[in-house]
Amino acid sequence: MVLLYKFESESNLNNQKKFDDLQQFVVNDLKKVDILIKEKIENKISYIPEVAGHLVKAGGKRIRPMLCLACAQLCNYKGTKHINLSASIEFIHTATLLHDDVIDESKKRRGLKTTNNIWGNKSSILVGDFLLSKSFELMTEIENIEVLKILSKTSSIIIEGEISQMLSNRNMATTEDEYLEIIKSKTSHLFSTASKINSYLIECSDEHKNALGSFGMNLGTAFQLIDDLLDYKATENDFGKMTGDDFKEGKMTLPIILALRRSNKIENNFWRKTIQDGQISPGDFQKACSILKKRKILNDIHIRAKHYGAIAKDALGIFDNSKEKKILLELVDFTINRNF
Amino acid sequence: MVLLYKFESESNLNNQKKFDDLQQFVVNDLKKVDILIKEKIENKISYIPEVAGHLVKAGGKRIRPMLCLACAQLCNYKGTKHINLSASIEFIHTATLLHDDVIDESKKRRGLKTTNNIWGNKSSILVGDFLLSKSFELMTEIENIEVLKILSKTSSIIIEGEISQMLSNRNMATTEDEYLEIIKSKTSHLFSTASKINSYLIECSDEHKNALGSFGMNLGTAFQLIDDLLDYKATENDFGKMTGDDFKEGKMTLPIILALRRSNKIENNFWRKTIQDGQISPGDFQKACSILKKRKILNDIHIRAKHYGAIAKDALGIFDNSKEKKILLELVDFTINRNF
Repeated sequence: MVLLYKFESESNLNNQKKFDDLQQFVVNDLKKVDILIKEKIENKISYIPEVAGHLVKAGGKRIRPMLCLACAQLCNYKGTKHINLSASIEFIHTATLLHDDVIDESKKRRGLKTTNNIWGNKSSILVGDFLLSKSFELMTEIENIEVLKILSKTSSIIIEGEISQMLSNRNMATTEDEYLEIIKSKTSHLFSTASKINSYLIECSDEHKNALGSFGMNLGTAFQLIDDLLDYKATENDFGKMTGDDFKEGKMTLPIILALRRSNKIENNFWRKTIQDGQISPGDFQKACSILKKRKILNDIHIRAKHYGAIAKDALGIFDNSKEKKILLELVDFTINRNF
Repeated sequence: MVLLYKFESESNLNNQKKFDDLQQFVVNDLKKVDILIKEKIENKISYIPEVAGHLVKAGGKRIRPMLCLACAQLCNYKGTKHINLSASIEFIHTATLLHDDVIDESKKRRGLKTTNNIWGNKSSILVGDFLLSKSFELMTEIENIEVLKILSKTSSIIIEGEISQMLSNRNMATTEDEYLEIIKSKTSHLFSTASKINSYLIECSDEHKNALGSFGMNLGTAFQLIDDLLDYKATENDFGKMTGDDFKEGKMTLPIILALRRSNKIENNFWRKTIQDGQISPGDFQKACSILKKRKILNDIHIRAKHYGAIAKDALGIFDNSKEKKILLELVDFTINRNF
């Protein structure tokens, strides 16, 4: 029997181990990042660490700082600035999550109530602004203009992506190419920056810098494809986030884009009613999931994600084999096969 | 007859002239700032310049960039980076305005519908984030780490001030000292940074740097005191913003803080009902204004503003007399005596 795709076949346990290996590999540095994050959200206004700490404590996968730390080891970086860079990258990410949750009116994230759900939209907006500003303060401590230019540019690109996504909501004319542009902007660029940024602190060839950037860019694209797929698949328990959120918000993610292209007349009317017009009746999400299954859409998105994963892996080809490289290649597999 | 304060006595025309003189003094540089701002909000996503341009076009007084430009001349700065710094400072300010309007649910600003009123909260949040990120990108073009540190720190301080203000809303226990801390953080610091930032690009003594910082800090405090006063005084025509907004939002600005301290039992109940409990009936704003008048509160705030204005003026004492210095001293008078 030929395995069409690993997604269903590889055990969660094996996949989880790849993630644990990465975590173990950077564990000492990651502790330092956590300490720095805590230190930077500490404030005379006790409300700030209380609110910001809620999301930081919830933790999430910390995939971006870990990526930054592992890539620092891959390029044999010997200084301490990777700690600062990882914290800064996590701050940018956390700031966008806080604002995303306000924009999407989300109630839960990572299995916990969202900040806006507990403290209200005003707090989420301002604490998000605070974290974005703090990420810039953290960057300036690196004292390297080139690094600062890359990070601040990345931050602008992320927000452009968020704006494009907002504009594409409920717009049935959105193409797969436009979707790819959006996720590259809102997700992949930060993965790319996390991967390559340390290489700007050392003597490193453009070839290696670009390879790291390409690795992160394609890994990030695979990551977001799977993220969007999981919103139509995961149960609340293993994903933390409520599933079906994208459906309710009328987000034009790839599952919907493909479903539209493969729909018969009845299905097309269903997507128009739910996604375009936002008229969702009880049972509609289950119906959406069963159409996606029938049309083999989640399978095909998984294959798309593997495509970007393969590019990411090949990008690292110019690096010598090493433990770091093995860990990063396994991160690609984890990203594609994860269930959370 | 002794003039107790200039506020009512000096003609608007004379005061307007002081502002016009400043504007005329920096007109060429200000044009360059406007071109740079337009260039930086230009984007392949046409929605961004459309939304951001609305507030930028509305213009406002542009007092922060003008301050930055005039102070650059005072310290005899001969380069071109002051254009970039002024635009960056205006971007930080505009970003906070966009988010403020979402938080305060404002309908009008500078006589025009607010961005959130036209495009919705989501757009205001994201375009605010975009401008904040762009301000950092702009700063990195200066290629000076010390300047970057000051600006990113300033941005964090502003947001801390916004958070403190949000927390003080409807809180009758807020003191004048706490209010002063809040306005220093949310307003005066950016005035201070705008005033001193160019001096970090040239050979300049700490004495002169600190003097510029102190000038801006105290000018900013006077500016915000008058801003808060005008919300209980100006008519929509000359202030642009709807008056009475602070009252409706239960903001603990100085007019209310003083009114509480000078209230009899009946007035105290009125403030509890309107400010603390947010129960506003038709005619309550007019009633609030007449209590402030009866208790001479606006007069006394004007005197408080003059106090900070006097400190600002003395701070420039160590600079030789010059046209620039005269213009900046007159800016203090304008700020205190303005009706818009």
